[in-house]
Amino acid sequence: MRVNVENIPRTIMLVRSDESFPQIPNGFPILVVLDQTKLPHVEDRIYVTDWREVIDLVKSLKVRGAPAIGIAGAAAMALRAAEFAYAQTDDLRKDEIDFERVFVIDEAAFDPELYLVGMEQAGRMIKRSRPTAVNLEWAVDRCMKLVREEVAAGNGAEAIAEKLYELVCAMIVDDEKVNRAIGANGAELLPNDATVLTHCNAGSLATSFFGTALGIVYTAAEGRGIKRVYSDETRPVGQGVRLTTWELSRAGVPVTLICDDMAASVMSQGDVDAVIVGADRIAANGDVANKIGTLGLAVLARHFGIPFYVAAPTSTIDVSTPDGEGIPVEVRDCSEVIQIPIEGVDVHNPAFDVTPASLVTKIVTENGAFDACDVKSSISHP
Amino acid sequence: MRVNVENIPRTIMLVRSDESFPQIPNGFPILVVLDQTKLPHVEDRIYVTDWREVIDLVKSLKVRGAPAIGIAGAAAMALRAAEFAYAQTDDLRKDEIDFERVFVIDEAAFDPELYLVGMEQAGRMIKRSRPTAVNLEWAVDRCMKLVREEVAAGNGAEAIAEKLYELVCAMIVDDEKVNRAIGANGAELLPNDATVLTHCNAGSLATSFFGTALGIVYTAAEGRGIKRVYSDETRPVGQGVRLTTWELSRAGVPVTLICDDMAASVMSQGDVDAVIVGADRIAANGDVANKIGTLGLAVLARHFGIPFYVAAPTSTIDVSTPDGEGIPVEVRDCSEVIQIPIEGVDVHNPAFDVTPASLVTKIVTENGAFDACDVKSSISHP
Repeated sequence: MRVNVENIPRTIMLVRSDESFPQIPNGFPILVVLDQTKLPHVEDRIYVTDWREVIDLVKSLKVRGAPAIGIAGAAAMALRAAEFAYAQTDDLRKDEIDFERVFVIDEAAFDPELYLVGMEQAGRMIKRSRPTAVNLEWAVDRCMKLVREEVAAGNGAEAIAEKLYELVCAMIVDDEKVNRAIGANGAELLPNDATVLTHCNAGSLATSFFGTALGIVYTAAEGRGIKRVYSDETRPVGQGVRLTTWELSRAGVPVTLICDDMAASVMSQGDVDAVIVGADRIAANGDVANKIGTLGLAVLARHFGIPFYVAAPTSTIDVSTPDGEGIPVEVRDCSEVIQIPIEGVDVHNPAFDVTPASLVTKIVTENGAFDACDVKSSISHP
Repeated sequence: MRVNVENIPRTIMLVRSDESFPQIPNGFPILVVLDQTKLPHVEDRIYVTDWREVIDLVKSLKVRGAPAIGIAGAAAMALRAAEFAYAQTDDLRKDEIDFERVFVIDEAAFDPELYLVGMEQAGRMIKRSRPTAVNLEWAVDRCMKLVREEVAAGNGAEAIAEKLYELVCAMIVDDEKVNRAIGANGAELLPNDATVLTHCNAGSLATSFFGTALGIVYTAAEGRGIKRVYSDETRPVGQGVRLTTWELSRAGVPVTLICDDMAASVMSQGDVDAVIVGADRIAANGDVANKIGTLGLAVLARHFGIPFYVAAPTSTIDVSTPDGEGIPVEVRDCSEVIQIPIEGVDVHNPAFDVTPASLVTKIVTENGAFDACDVKSSISHP
């Protein structure tokens, strides 16, 4: 089977309403996402015009993956701005903003101060939807920076909504470019016909397109060859079994599903050339927060002498957090682990763990492959 | 909640048919097992009189755990012998034994040579039902040794069936004694109020009663205290989530369920005093075959400086296998990992892995706690 990444559907898009959406004002932005909770057996798209719904999509993992939730967060800001722009101002009070009723199409009634308060409040709510991945923060902050600049330049709600729409579209395009650069930089690290082990889904589905860890796999598959990818199941949510296996098989890359507790066995057979994972947040010292299970794989890779690569855009690097201890780890609901509770049994469900920089062979960004302790230099480079 | 191991139901028993089983000849042996595939939500007992059905119970994991399947194997031999003893001889030919029709109640027609061939054939079939745990082999061999001695002494089918019944009952009693000794030997290794991490189920449910790894936990809980046990889910079959959590909570031991890929995170918090697991086969050099995932935990325990203990009866030590490479690892059906196949996705499902002796802090048997490389001396000791 020939490798063809284009067989993987796009994860996230922002489009304008047209006559095919008669109930939505013409030209209003629509966020279109592939519902990742229904994969691999059902390919369902969700169309969202309400920015509050985007928060629910992110919380419920319908959109997941650090780069993808960054874009979703920015899209939520664009939808918020569109809501401001497309309706009538009505009873606006600074101390009690009712988002259902804050409308400012009438440029004469546009109050820049109140507008900023409203946008910032939305930004805070969006950022809070998931705490660990820094991309959400990064993307919302980029949007707010633009909003502030536009307000300062004297522009109104409609112009700002337009600018945010364009920013999100640019972020989607940029993300793919970044991922293709990560792919190229990482593929150089692999031998010909490499066997790779990965965890969770740092693939096309976790990004606008192409993926980070799997971006490296796709680039290698198109070039020096990929013999096989071992995909960890990734309990409790199953991003490996539901998403990674599906997108790799779609793209024509040979893939073998294993349970998380089989990784050591596979590595001990001498059959794995590299472990490649994504990242949700990289601290200034190179410590990496990523899906729960990553730390264990890093320890195993070190034990078995296998290189351990982290693939992530520079937007994942959080220079304001000095090391892994400062990264908030989201603890999710027990029902993800066990559907029917067992009397007297507690459940622990941290969604992420932190891998110390010392266990990471290289962090691969769009700017190159860096020693983890030197990851900060990736931001300014080249 | 007070710790009380007696709240855990017995896993496996051999009883005699009486008037409550009108369809079974009075006095015929009945194997009674707790169906482990239905736990934790349903407590169902299975009553078996046909030795072939015991093979199905073992293959389908209704009975599992190295010591328990050893006893089940011996019970199957006792049922085979009872079948020989309780019916009429009929058309016996050495080269084509039809087990449905091999009956030898008539002592005059008892052919010792044919009888041995029949028992040995049953023994081979029983041993083959699962390849990794050596206890099955050990138990069947013990039965065959007795059978040969009895035949050599001139005893007939009925007398031999009686002796095998008694042997199985003795094995059940002995197994509990052995486990209580393992518990006492292992509990000495733990600090007061220890936090233990375990994988799979090496508990009362894996044995006739009390358990090996969890036997240590119960002994410690009754003495110096157990703060908490972290139970790995143990994919794909879920012996941790379904069995270990259930029996620990039954016994009143605080237990927290985690997914397999969370063990490194929990260990990295400095919260685990010891990892304790069971064993399916221990090679002469101390290499340990146990449930898939054990090797990974041993590597993690070494990395985080946590002692890694293997608890097993000496019957698990296989001196005829020099090292772990000689241990057959059962590969089970893909459907255990993923119920609905995904097109183009392979699945790998090894049921066990092999942990090198160098990663094992101590092997705890009924005779004491031994360095793994010195495990052979445990057999002759004390």
